[in-house]
Amino acid sequence: MTAGPLGGGRLSLNQATVKHLDLAQSVDLCVRHQIPAIGLWRDRVAEAGLRQSAALVRAAGLHVSSLCRGGFFTHPDGPARVSALADNRRAIAEAAELGADTLVLVPGGLPPGSRDLALARRMVADAIADLVPTAQRLGVRLGVEPMHPLFCADRGVVSTLGDALDLAFQFPAEAVGVVVDSYHVWWDQQLAAQLDRARGRIVSVQLCDWVVPLPADVLLGRGHLGDGVIDFAPMMAGLLAAGYTGFVEVEIFNQEVWDAPADQTAATVRERFAALLG
Amino acid sequence: MTAGPLGGGRLSLNQATVKHLDLAQSVDLCVRHQIPAIGLWRDRVAEAGLRQSAALVRAAGLHVSSLCRGGFFTHPDGPARVSALADNRRAIAEAAELGADTLVLVPGGLPPGSRDLALARRMVADAIADLVPTAQRLGVRLGVEPMHPLFCADRGVVSTLGDALDLAFQFPAEAVGVVVDSYHVWWDQQLAAQLDRARGRIVSVQLCDWVVPLPADVLLGRGHLGDGVIDFAPMMAGLLAAGYTGFVEVEIFNQEVWDAPADQTAATVRERFAALLG
Repeated sequence: MTAGPLGGGRLSLNQATVKHLDLAQSVDLCVRHQIPAIGLWRDRVAEAGLRQSAALVRAAGLHVSSLCRGGFFTHPDGPARVSALADNRRAIAEAAELGADTLVLVPGGLPPGSRDLALARRMVADAIADLVPTAQRLGVRLGVEPMHPLFCADRGVVSTLGDALDLAFQFPAEAVGVVVDSYHVWWDQQLAAQLDRARGRIVSVQLCDWVVPLPADVLLGRGHLGDGVIDFAPMMAGLLAAGYTGFVEVEIFNQEVWDAPADQTAATVRERFAALLG
Repeated sequence: MTAGPLGGGRLSLNQATVKHLDLAQSVDLCVRHQIPAIGLWRDRVAEAGLRQSAALVRAAGLHVSSLCRGGFFTHPDGPARVSALADNRRAIAEAAELGADTLVLVPGGLPPGSRDLALARRMVADAIADLVPTAQRLGVRLGVEPMHPLFCADRGVVSTLGDALDLAFQFPAEAVGVVVDSYHVWWDQQLAAQLDRARGRIVSVQLCDWVVPLPADVLLGRGHLGDGVIDFAPMMAGLLAAGYTGFVEVEIFNQEVWDAPADQTAATVRERFAALLG
């Protein structure tokens, strides 16, 4: 991982982009398409076995740019909260075993029946505080992912890069950073200023495009780079200016992409990445 | 319009909530349900005739809390831009004739084929600068409505109350203010701070709830107050603390609400408003 202009050498394929492939198939796909890194998902790692997954990616010479995902922290005190924290500790251990650059944390939405955003945000901060010692002990960086305000009610009460940074800055930089996902932050008029502020805290970058109009299932309104309205060049310039030297994942949730042959998807991912960011 | 706790005396019904009614029917509905103000839409005003509309609402003793809507400013130089500005000047004249507290401006999304948000935002600022002399001459306040980031690509490139205020502060307070619509701003962690900053600039308040899950058409994911996840009390407290003394519109885009009998809708609007904000 060295700083410099982006090229295929910084590309990582997030497994969600080819979600019908199992871990071994995803690894093979990356190798076949000379994609040097992969973002893994816990369900596929569990299916293949943790040690076997770690061995597979190492044998293939792939870097693990992230493990997706931990988080979903917005529970009142009680069994659900205890269970969420225990699951996140397991996820940290998995990220360590896999050598992942970060464990991506999706904050979680409003607790059922609650309208108290401030309380939900405190629950997120408290949960991260609880996990930091484990992350430090195992050498894993937690990545707080701000989620598009579209998902504030049901998936992520941390909505902007600025708010995610305010949260991350409460903790040591080696333990907590932020995930910059183009889909979640592209609209933000403060993005450039917040990227500038994010120096040393960016632990993962994930890209997909914002497709217009949104499909009926708004979770799936993501497209290949270039298929939507996001201007990636200034965002990447801001990331590089902020000193980000890690991999850049392409992570696309889109039914048509999932229905396409995986080799076609990987080829398009590489082509678009090179054309727009190379 | 006096400051104080909210009650039915501050309620206004936005015509969009009963969009199948024409202007006379909407006016009658407000009178029948003792709703003292109405937010009008230009298409319904045009249908009834501008002078006749103004006469109708005055005869009914209704206050006009807003005229919806002007804006859609994001055009490059050329006929579309000239036409948009001319239409907005007509809208300002209509707002003056109707005695509306504000003309609501929807900024507009990215121009077709463009990914340049900064340019689109400059187009909005330039258009407002162009309209301010007309607004001042006719005594109409322009209300910049920040739109939920969900709509950044296609309806409004001004996404947060903070960004709308940055825009409004470029112009005299008597000419340009901001519209606070709960649906667009409820998620914003900076909302309380921005409401505090908005003193003297809030020209309209519109309320509806954010319903989970969103329907397939995200434009219609709005509900009666209390049917979703928005905590209205702190938002209203912030508005009152910022010195807002105007009417509070209920504006709901929702197919089920539109399919319901208008009298039932008006009764529900009144009840919920009193229960949550009275």
